[in-house]
Amino acid sequence: MTLFLIPTTLAPDTAEAVLPAQIKQVVSQTDYYFVENIRTARRFISELKLGKTIDDLHFYELDKNTTVQQVKGYFQGIPPDAAIGVMSEAGCPGVADPGAIAVQMAHQLGIRVVPLVGPSSILLGLMASGFSGQSFVFHGYLPIEKAARHKMLKVLEKNAQSFQTQIFMETPFRNNAFLDDILQICHPDLKLCIACNVSASDEFIQTKSIAQWRKAKPDLHKKPTMFLMSQ
Amino acid sequence: MTLFLIPTTLAPDTAEAVLPAQIKQVVSQTDYYFVENIRTARRFISELKLGKTIDDLHFYELDKNTTVQQVKGYFQGIPPDAAIGVMSEAGCPGVADPGAIAVQMAHQLGIRVVPLVGPSSILLGLMASGFSGQSFVFHGYLPIEKAARHKMLKVLEKNAQSFQTQIFMETPFRNNAFLDDILQICHPDLKLCIACNVSASDEFIQTKSIAQWRKAKPDLHKKPTMFLMSQ
Repeated sequence: MTLFLIPTTLAPDTAEAVLPAQIKQVVSQTDYYFVENIRTARRFISELKLGKTIDDLHFYELDKNTTVQQVKGYFQGIPPDAAIGVMSEAGCPGVADPGAIAVQMAHQLGIRVVPLVGPSSILLGLMASGFSGQSFVFHGYLPIEKAARHKMLKVLEKNAQSFQTQIFMETPFRNNAFLDDILQICHPDLKLCIACNVSASDEFIQTKSIAQWRKAKPDLHKKPTMFLMSQ
Repeated sequence: MTLFLIPTTLAPDTAEAVLPAQIKQVVSQTDYYFVENIRTARRFISELKLGKTIDDLHFYELDKNTTVQQVKGYFQGIPPDAAIGVMSEAGCPGVADPGAIAVQMAHQLGIRVVPLVGPSSILLGLMASGFSGQSFVFHGYLPIEKAARHKMLKVLEKNAQSFQTQIFMETPFRNNAFLDDILQICHPDLKLCIACNVSASDEFIQTKSIAQWRKAKPDLHKKPTMFLMSQ
């Protein structure tokens, strides 16, 4: 048994450009899938146009409530020589999604785990920021509550000053308010990279100082965006 | 002018499997390159078999001593409508290599920066570890001096206990001694993922407790390895 971690696209109609050949090859040979969302996964496999009959495939949904025992049960119900794919809603599975629980269980059961190459907005944002990749931290979502969020932004600013790149995000429909917060709280000289719609045709990635961003704010409403901060 | 960040392979003979089509497409249209090592870059482009005459290409070497002024000079010497590629020795440019200085300058000069998808041992190790990708930190190389290294390992262990995945590495010829240090210093219950020769045919990625690793140590001598730690 092998557990393949299969990245999906971040933006529509980009599969041919951004997915390496190994993904098509693995999907064409895999009939069992652990996925964050079954509908998205079925659509993704269809779009690869591999001639697979989607209704013959076996999907097991993983969400934040899935227990270790359930995942163990899934593995035990699959033929021992099968290949299993793990797919998240978008991007690389196991990074900020429930796929990690399947990977943990695979290691415990001695099952081989093979990660495949694909798009990650965290990594693409980091590459394109121009900030240090020698030392960086991904925080996921910052607190929603105002006082806690402001305190956290001050902590990130302090970390950024010792050349550790700070990476974080917000739910897309709150991006504009979040950007306002950052521009209000952070020091004018601090550098902020906004990596928006990464890998899409309208990708927007720019690094400027807080002072420069204050003069011309981009509209990030409902657009998937990664924020990066450095000295 | 556009600055493309072009990932290269991590392991020999893997280009066809791990590189997406957009890389071949961009390289076929790009004649100017900022690279970490000219010989490696020429060989990589040859291996893509795009029919390009390598001697017609323009290479500018970036190393840790390259200054901002030099990079600015490079940009100024290139035709304004040209595409420029940035390539590191292996994997994704701008992450733990001198490519970031070119990206910084591009942002300052208002040049569009486009990151392409490709292999990263940090990201592939994180995906395959089964550890939290909601919150993680990459530390690069730990201190070489024994007391400082031990102190740092205790700090990482403490961070790992609050479910922040810790990622770090060592120069490959010192990997075995480094693993001995980790196994000696860290708590038996702590989990360690060893991601070795990632994307190669002899890829080895396993997550076990420190206590389990103590019973059977893999030989990591001269093998590129990423270490990941979590509770």
